[in-house]
Amino acid sequence: MSFPSPLIINLAPTGMVPVRSQSPHVPLSPEEIIADAVLCAQHGASMFHLHARDADGVPTDDAATYESIIRGIRAYSPELIIVTTTSGRRSPEVEKRASSLRLHHSLRPDMASLTLGSMNFAREASLNSPDTIMQLAGIMQELGIKPELEVFDLGMVNFAKVLIDKGLLKPPYYFNIILGNPATAQAKLLHLATIVADLPPESIWSLGGIGRYQTAANGLGVVMAHGVRTGLEDNLWLDDERTTLATNAQLVARVAAQASALGRPIATASIARNMLGLASRVSL
Amino acid sequence: MSFPSPLIINLAPTGMVPVRSQSPHVPLSPEEIIADAVLCAQHGASMFHLHARDADGVPTDDAATYESIIRGIRAYSPELIIVTTTSGRRSPEVEKRASSLRLHHSLRPDMASLTLGSMNFAREASLNSPDTIMQLAGIMQELGIKPELEVFDLGMVNFAKVLIDKGLLKPPYYFNIILGNPATAQAKLLHLATIVADLPPESIWSLGGIGRYQTAANGLGVVMAHGVRTGLEDNLWLDDERTTLATNAQLVARVAAQASALGRPIATASIARNMLGLASRVSL
Repeated sequence: MSFPSPLIINLAPTGMVPVRSQSPHVPLSPEEIIADAVLCAQHGASMFHLHARDADGVPTDDAATYESIIRGIRAYSPELIIVTTTSGRRSPEVEKRASSLRLHHSLRPDMASLTLGSMNFAREASLNSPDTIMQLAGIMQELGIKPELEVFDLGMVNFAKVLIDKGLLKPPYYFNIILGNPATAQAKLLHLATIVADLPPESIWSLGGIGRYQTAANGLGVVMAHGVRTGLEDNLWLDDERTTLATNAQLVARVAAQASALGRPIATASIARNMLGLASRVSL
Repeated sequence: MSFPSPLIINLAPTGMVPVRSQSPHVPLSPEEIIADAVLCAQHGASMFHLHARDADGVPTDDAATYESIIRGIRAYSPELIIVTTTSGRRSPEVEKRASSLRLHHSLRPDMASLTLGSMNFAREASLNSPDTIMQLAGIMQELGIKPELEVFDLGMVNFAKVLIDKGLLKPPYYFNIILGNPATAQAKLLHLATIVADLPPESIWSLGGIGRYQTAANGLGVVMAHGVRTGLEDNLWLDDERTTLATNAQLVARVAAQASALGRPIATASIARNMLGLASRVSL
């Protein structure tokens, strides 16, 4: 069969929510995150969606912590694509959300997350007002950072079009579609098809799922999408029965094994950069 | 052709946003809202989605203002279905949002709005955390008030199912699907079809649209849905070119004329109560 492209594997190793007591495998310190990123890069991940934690494992906007993580990953391979979060679940102020974007040029992320609306997670709201989204998009544009467009429901694709009309996004667009959260789109073909039908031209899309929906979403993504997002940020378990805690490397390896079984090539970081219109860092 | 039911016309005459300077026709005082409700009832509206304003025209949670409006509408016809808002766009505290629910029994609304998630409107976020939604649903259940389930995107239908699983909603469910807001589902057939395909059994659904999408959404609703929501809360204009400001009565009359042209009966308030499982107030 023919695939839309080599498969971009995006790893979300940590997130805001998982804590050590839930799983010994969630990387929290810069050293742990770097080690997991290196291991997962060896399994085929080319993109790394990062959330920093402080010494107590609590989410932090601290720029120096982001610098440590990014320095470590780039020391292993400068070509790997670094994405930092701009989540507002911890601090609503735009400048705090953007703190990882304003690092020195050599440590600046290639991309940053941009959630395209307000929504509910299972236990709490995620507030991203239209103004906040436009301000974050403006900062990314000013700094040459490409948005990772986070889509949880239909309307978020439409809001991307609003941003395109305002000149705040440039193609190719990278959409991360995340299914299975209780208050947004579900891991159902009709939901996914309706979202994908609405994507603007020149879109690269990646598929992830929350909790037990990660396996199905990743499986669909390997067959149909330009990429997948996997990792412990979205799901801690290896099996649907929740008997075995996963590692990031196991989740990436499972995706890579599916791609291999289908004969689908995995995108190297250089290929992924080319698909996304990101300059190579090898020649920098 | 065969229709799912007589058509329930739900009027949203005022809302939180429109001000006098935008249109002379938006009813703001209790007397104006009552007069519009009576006129629109004569044109076929059987359900009234109410937002109170204070003497300066500013949205208010004041229980006495709600009492005045409800007393006036019920003096004209006790059978008309009264819905009050629990919007949190003004005050986030659950008890303030619920102030119109705790009126004396004879003035208590029959129904109240329950928005099933957080979302962005064009200029601001609307925050409805999972906890807030569950608390409001619990208060409505305790007081015998039926939720008007406000759906702006796919995931909000799924969250209704979460509430059903928790025993917080009882059938028949009344869903108000509102299309055309920039950050949620659009007035497109595929979006609507995907939302409707997800509704639980025993659902009554009504269709409304924001701004210039109201006409199309109402038109689709007259053909396909159990009801429509219309009114100046969602749209101030009679025409897409925005040359003529509408009145609530004109918007209701346009819906009624479409139904008449199709040979579709309009639900009286008694018929609508029967469809929704609401006790008659005539015999109270």
